[in-house]
Amino acid sequence: MRGNTPRPARAVVLVFLGAIAAGTALLMLPASRRGDGAAPLLTAFFSATSAITTSGMSTVDIATYWSGFGHVLLAVLTQAGGFGITAAATVLGLLVSQRLGLRGRMMAGAETGSGVAHGDVRRVLVLAAVVMFASEAVMAVFVTGRLWLSYRVAFPSALREGLFNAVQAFNNSGFSLRSEGLSGFVGDWWICVPLTLGVIVGGLGVPVLYEIAKELRRPAAWSTHTRLTVWGSLVLLVVGFVTVLGFEWNNALAPLGVADKVLASFVQGTIPRSGGFNTLDYGSFDQDTSAIVTGLMFIGGGSASTAGGIKVTTFFLLAFVIWTEARGERDVVVGRRRIAESTQRQATAVALLGVAAVAAGTLLLLRLTADVTFDRALFEVMAAFSTAGLTTGLTAELSGPGQLVLIVMMFVGRVGTVAVASALALNTRHRLYRYPEERPLVG
Amino acid sequence: MRGNTPRPARAVVLVFLGAIAAGTALLMLPASRRGDGAAPLLTAFFSATSAITTSGMSTVDIATYWSGFGHVLLAVLTQAGGFGITAAATVLGLLVSQRLGLRGRMMAGAETGSGVAHGDVRRVLVLAAVVMFASEAVMAVFVTGRLWLSYRVAFPSALREGLFNAVQAFNNSGFSLRSEGLSGFVGDWWICVPLTLGVIVGGLGVPVLYEIAKELRRPAAWSTHTRLTVWGSLVLLVVGFVTVLGFEWNNALAPLGVADKVLASFVQGTIPRSGGFNTLDYGSFDQDTSAIVTGLMFIGGGSASTAGGIKVTTFFLLAFVIWTEARGERDVVVGRRRIAESTQRQATAVALLGVAAVAAGTLLLLRLTADVTFDRALFEVMAAFSTAGLTTGLTAELSGPGQLVLIVMMFVGRVGTVAVASALALNTRHRLYRYPEERPLVG
Ligand SMILES: [K+]
Ligand SMILES: [K+]
Repeated sequence: MRGNTPRPARAVVLVFLGAIAAGTALLMLPASRRGDGAAPLLTAFFSATSAITTSGMSTVDIATYWSGFGHVLLAVLTQAGGFGITAAATVLGLLVSQRLGLRGRMMAGAETGSGVAHGDVRRVLVLAAVVMFASEAVMAVFVTGRLWLSYRVAFPSALREGLFNAVQAFNNSGFSLRSEGLSGFVGDWWICVPLTLGVIVGGLGVPVLYEIAKELRRPAAWSTHTRLTVWGSLVLLVVGFVTVLGFEWNNALAPLGVADKVLASFVQGTIPRSGGFNTLDYGSFDQDTSAIVTGLMFIGGGSASTAGGIKVTTFFLLAFVIWTEARGERDVVVGRRRIAESTQRQATAVALLGVAAVAAGTLLLLRLTADVTFDRALFEVMAAFSTAGLTTGLTAELSGPGQLVLIVMMFVGRVGTVAVASALALNTRHRLYRYPEERPLVG
Repeated sequence: MRGNTPRPARAVVLVFLGAIAAGTALLMLPASRRGDGAAPLLTAFFSATSAITTSGMSTVDIATYWSGFGHVLLAVLTQAGGFGITAAATVLGLLVSQRLGLRGRMMAGAETGSGVAHGDVRRVLVLAAVVMFASEAVMAVFVTGRLWLSYRVAFPSALREGLFNAVQAFNNSGFSLRSEGLSGFVGDWWICVPLTLGVIVGGLGVPVLYEIAKELRRPAAWSTHTRLTVWGSLVLLVVGFVTVLGFEWNNALAPLGVADKVLASFVQGTIPRSGGFNTLDYGSFDQDTSAIVTGLMFIGGGSASTAGGIKVTTFFLLAFVIWTEARGERDVVVGRRRIAESTQRQATAVALLGVAAVAAGTLLLLRLTADVTFDRALFEVMAAFSTAGLTTGLTAELSGPGQLVLIVMMFVGRVGTVAVASALALNTRHRLYRYPEERPLVG
């Protein structure tokens, strides 16, 4: 981008780098680690990056490695990272729509697409914070109450775990205060359903939540962005649910009863969208389930949300582009709205840059680590890039250079996609002349 | 495409299906098989599809399974398939450029892109045939001479093998009359260099060969299509060469001297572009080499060539789209020519449909076969889709349903991409009204 990255995008990158540095320093304090001594630099760096990018991957056992203070730090970093990225993406999105809206109005009367009007910034961010805290409170009540009343966990411990899980779920991260994750609650509707719904709400994104709140009773008035995100998310949730239920019935789900199979499939089919906790062991999944989960992670959640990936709108816009081509239409039309050519090209660029980043990361991980199979390397890199943070168990075994690859992938996937997308949209120049048009053969 | 696939594209699909049926019947004749009995339906079906799509994959040992008559049949089917697809793609390309050219002239004075003028069809196809037979003759002379003079093979056998290899190379197929393929010639410049150059020439494509022949001394006059194909192919050849040499130096290349290492890397770095013969064992390659080879197979060779894949122009056009986005330019400009928006969208559609086809094929292969690892399934499906036809050894072990998956992938990759690309370009309609424009958030 040759030094012409627009300044707001660059600022977001710098703020996140600063936050990761601060988080690393705090996690290296002796007080953060359980027992004597302090966490080494790489471990703290990995965990801070993972928390702030809300990936939830870890090279150590969160439960036993960090102290109570360390756990609070991780929760705060996750919360700050999750809210920070959604706020940043929302503001950048507004800048983009403002800029394009002005130009659009001058040029062709184009509407802007995010459904968030200009000048709304403060109101939008306040609403985002309210939704976040309310969702987390509801989840915390369910999880705390259930742990306290049914599992006989002492109230302070139950509350601590309830709050921690609520923060992890809404921010689509995936740390757990238990070494075995949430696998002990695989059949527990009181714990699984609230947390999974929290993951879904957190993954819709601020512009969508804002518009739903504003126009709850008039879905017809929703912007194309909101409709694409809501319907697209629903489709992906069904795909995830059916995949896990169908392919793992006799495998990872085999020990469970029918009701528990359904619940576990709902949870584990939702999570790849970018949440990171698990009630089943991804390492035990069939290869084809893993492959589909890998694809779902790549797509991720909504724009300006706590979820990662290339985003739901990007994926479905490209599907509409293909559909339009197949029908031989000139305009890409989604629900009676024409999609701007520049938006189509941005979607292509974001998706292909994502493929390139994941490919480069996978090759690097294969180069830098011995005895890793291709599919596990791809899964792990995809989990880092999409900040889904799932693991087949590889993360804990990685060498230093391998860990650095995942750190870079988490940062690129979380901050890079948002910064690149807005940089692409903000950074426009016009030549005063145009070259003659040509049509090379394709395919 | 709901029954509105343009008729020329549908005709190509039907002709190829008919040719495969005829080839299957011929290969099931007892005379085609060595020894007693005839080849079973599935084996003949697989081999006929492989020959006609010039993939060169095989579930049996070509050398010992088929009779001399069977070998002649395979060579004829390969030749017919290779020339057939290039001719079909050339004619479809001309139809497209004619249609678009007419419309373009009416609309905006657009130039057409393939560099082949209208009404040239007969001249172009004659030239294609001349280049094909001349290239094959040169290769046959080298290989026959070398086998006869240096390896003391009897002249008739040497001639038979020379002709067979020449046909396989130019048509970017990969059958061999030796059970061990060309691995016995890994250090033999007289055999490897002519065959590899034949693979490269065959993979450039008819429009490019025609334009080079016409304007050999004025590269500045070449169309964007020809320049993209030539320079793009060069870049991919260097990537393939450097990858194999660098990553396999101490692995698959370890037993060889330095000169042989260089030769083998030249050969095996070129082949993934869609040729199918091998002097090294792909099964022994490092995982990261395999991953890059898989990517090169997906890209493939030139449009309207004997090579498969999504094609060099498709790949590099998308790279230019990303570059344009990153620089914030409005027009995608390649060497002082603006690329039509519709061409950009076709490239996106062809590439993404390719990804979808390979993903579906890989999932299906994993479902239908036991004990196959993800990376090998992906490699094999990619080899079939791109008709590169390389194998890590998996093809020979596949169950019936697994073989059917590869048959479908070969057909879709070879005929489907050409038919779809031209159908996309030919099939255009216009609505009389346009919807208001909107810009959903992306990324
Ligand atoms: K996560
Ligand atoms: K081939």
